[in-house]
Amino acid sequence: MTPDTATVRARWARVQANLRAEGADAMVVVKPQNTFYLSGYTPMIYSHPVLVVLPAEGEPVFVLHALRAHSSRKVSAITDIRPYGRWAKEIGPDHWWQVLAEVMAERGLTDARIGIEGEFLPYNYQRKLAETLPGATFTDTGHALMRARYVKDAAELESLRVASEIADAGMDAALEAVAARRSEVEVASVAMRTMQEVWSSLHPDRLAMDFGNLEGGVFNALWSYSLIGDRVPMNSAPPTSRRPVDGEIQWTVIWTAIDGMHAENERSVAVGALPAERQRAFEALLAIREEVQPYLRPGLSCAEVYEAARESYVRHGYGDYLPGRIGHGLGLGPHEQPSLGPHDDLVLEPGMALTFEPNLRIPSFGGLQHSDSLVITEDGHEFLTHTRRDLIQV
Amino acid sequence: MTPDTATVRARWARVQANLRAEGADAMVVVKPQNTFYLSGYTPMIYSHPVLVVLPAEGEPVFVLHALRAHSSRKVSAITDIRPYGRWAKEIGPDHWWQVLAEVMAERGLTDARIGIEGEFLPYNYQRKLAETLPGATFTDTGHALMRARYVKDAAELESLRVASEIADAGMDAALEAVAARRSEVEVASVAMRTMQEVWSSLHPDRLAMDFGNLEGGVFNALWSYSLIGDRVPMNSAPPTSRRPVDGEIQWTVIWTAIDGMHAENERSVAVGALPAERQRAFEALLAIREEVQPYLRPGLSCAEVYEAARESYVRHGYGDYLPGRIGHGLGLGPHEQPSLGPHDDLVLEPGMALTFEPNLRIPSFGGLQHSDSLVITEDGHEFLTHTRRDLIQV
Repeated sequence: MTPDTATVRARWARVQANLRAEGADAMVVVKPQNTFYLSGYTPMIYSHPVLVVLPAEGEPVFVLHALRAHSSRKVSAITDIRPYGRWAKEIGPDHWWQVLAEVMAERGLTDARIGIEGEFLPYNYQRKLAETLPGATFTDTGHALMRARYVKDAAELESLRVASEIADAGMDAALEAVAARRSEVEVASVAMRTMQEVWSSLHPDRLAMDFGNLEGGVFNALWSYSLIGDRVPMNSAPPTSRRPVDGEIQWTVIWTAIDGMHAENERSVAVGALPAERQRAFEALLAIREEVQPYLRPGLSCAEVYEAARESYVRHGYGDYLPGRIGHGLGLGPHEQPSLGPHDDLVLEPGMALTFEPNLRIPSFGGLQHSDSLVITEDGHEFLTHTRRDLIQV
Repeated sequence: MTPDTATVRARWARVQANLRAEGADAMVVVKPQNTFYLSGYTPMIYSHPVLVVLPAEGEPVFVLHALRAHSSRKVSAITDIRPYGRWAKEIGPDHWWQVLAEVMAERGLTDARIGIEGEFLPYNYQRKLAETLPGATFTDTGHALMRARYVKDAAELESLRVASEIADAGMDAALEAVAARRSEVEVASVAMRTMQEVWSSLHPDRLAMDFGNLEGGVFNALWSYSLIGDRVPMNSAPPTSRRPVDGEIQWTVIWTAIDGMHAENERSVAVGALPAERQRAFEALLAIREEVQPYLRPGLSCAEVYEAARESYVRHGYGDYLPGRIGHGLGLGPHEQPSLGPHDDLVLEPGMALTFEPNLRIPSFGGLQHSDSLVITEDGHEFLTHTRRDLIQV
C-alpha cells in the first residue's frame, strides 16, 4: 500500500521548506528510505542507483534504471521519471550522472548549491556529482530531510499500527513457545511464521519489506530473534539451538516493517521462578518504566526524559547499569533519530513515533528489557504495541 | 555458524596479496559484507560503524562500538578488538576515528596509502578519514577485496548448499500453492513459512541473516515473492492479493541467505494450459537454457557465455527480447559480481558461484524465468538448486 499523492506532496513541501532554510537550491537524494519517502516507490533492489532530484521549489524528478521505468510509472507519486540504461524497449543514456546532468541543466541548477546525504552517499557517487556539476557547491542536508521525517503523517501512522499489530501477534506466539521451553531459534521461527500468516491473511496488499543501508542495519521485514540468560548482553545476535533452564530470563525481540514503517515489541520473560537477585532486578526495571513513562509527552526534550530515567535507575540502586539510551525513533529506519539519550535536545511533538525500552544488563545473569512502540499524542502518548508489560513468568 | 580461524586467515592473505598488487599499504573496510568476510562476525545492526583495518602485511584490527565488544570477542576471528564509545564497563574513546588514529599510529600507517571502498564508504566517513590521517593518500580498493570474494572457500560453499536446500524446500511449497491457485502473497508467505521451519528444525545454529547496503538491495534472509502475468515485468515488486487465471504464467522468486551466503531459486509456472504464443515462448526459453548451459565452465569469460545466449535467442526468434544479463555472482551479496552480461571479461574459475537465469519478458503476456544457483567445477558446473527445470504446468 503506497501513500496517496497528496500525502507525498506534503512531504515534498516539508523537505523543501527545510532546504530553503539551509540555503540549498535542490537536494539529490539517494538513500533508499528517502527516495521511498519522496515517491512511495521502492524497487526493493538498489544495485542500480535510484535518485530523486528535489528542487527547493517545484516538482521533483525521479532518475532510475530503465529496468525500473515500468514499475515506477505504475506506483510513484513522482511523475517525471527519467530512465538511464536499457531494458527491452526502454532506452536512456548509459549512466545516472548523464541523466542528472540533463535534469540539472533543464532546471537551471548546474551552478546551484546542492544538498546531499553526507552520512550515506558513497564517496564515488559524490565524486561523480562533483565531476558532473563542476560549477555546483555541495552541502550536507541529510538532517534537513530527516527532520521532515520526525513527525509521522496519517499514512505512516496507519502503517505503523499494522506493523505493531503484526508484532503483537508474533510476540503472543513467542511467549507460548517460551512457556513450552523451546530453543532460541524455535521461539524466533514460530514468531516469524505467525507474523507471515497474519500479514498474508489480513494485510495482503501491504508491503512487508525493508531497506538496505547504514542507518539501522538490515533485517527481515517480519523479524524475530531470541536470546537466553548470559546471551542477552550480546544484544543483536543470531539465535541458536540453546534452550532455557528454569530461573533464566529469555528475551525475545520482534521487529516488523509494513509499508516501510518499523515497529518494535521486545519482552523479557522469567522461565519458571527466578532467583532473588533476578526477581529484584525485574521488579526494579518495571518500576523504572512506570516512573519514566509519564515523561513521554509533548514539550519535553529527549534528554529530559533520559534524565528522569537516570534518577530512577539511581533511586532503585541500578545507577551503575544505566543504558546509553532508553528508546529511539521509529519510522522508515528501525532505529532512526531521535534518541532518548542524554545528548538529544529534540523536543517531543505529537506524531513522533518512538520505542520505550529502558533496560538492565547485569553481567551475573544477562539482562532484561521490554520494548514498546508508541506515538506521542497531544497530551501524552499512545502505545501501539499491546503485549502485557508486567513481570511475565511462564 | 561462523567460519574457522584458518579459513578467515586465508581470506586475509588473499585480500592482502591484492592490496600489495595495487600498491596499497592497508585497507579500511566498512561495508558489512566485507567486515563479515574478514572476521566472521556480524552485529546485524550497523548504525554504529564497524571497521576492519587490514594492513597489507600482518594482522587486522577490529574497530567497533563498545556495545559490540562482548559479542565480537566471542565470535570474531580477528582478536585485536578496539572498542569506541561506552557500554556498561566497556569504555573507549568517543568516536571511531579516534580509535582509528591510534591504530594507524601504532602500525606506522599514518602517512600510508590507504585503500577504501569507494562505491560504499559514505562521503562523511571519507572526510573523517582524511581529517584523521592528513598525511595519508586514499585509493579505491573495493574491487581488490571483491576479487578475493569471487572464488568461494569450502565454508562458503557449505553455507551455499544449505541456503540452496532451504530455497528448494520453499519452492516445493510455492509450487503446491500455485497449483491451488493461491494469490501472489499467499504463495510467497507459504514459501517463507516453510523455509523458516526447515531452517529452525534442520539448521538451527546457522545464521539466517542478511546485510544492509547498496550492493544488492536488502531482503529477508529467507525471502520469497511471486508475480502473475502482466505483473512479471515489474521484476522486483511486492506481491499482492492478485490470484492467477488459467493460461497465465506465475513467477515465484526465492532468495535465501545462510551464514551470509545467498542462493536463488526462481520458477515460472504455467497455470493450466497456456495459449499458443506463451507455450511457444516457454519452450523457447527452455531450449535457450539447454543450449547455453554447457558454456558454464572454467576458461570461458562471462561475455563469451552471454554471446552464446545471444546467438541462441536470435536462433529461436527472440533476439528482440535479449536480457541485459543471464546470471550473476552469488555470495555475501545477492547480486554480486561477476555479471553474465556482454561487458564482463572475467574468466570463470572453479569455485565461483553464479545464478543461471536467461529470461523472456514479453509485453503481451508478462514474462518467464527459471533461475538456479550453481558453482563452477573443474570440468563444468554443479547445480545447487534442484527443483525441476522443465515446462512446469499446474
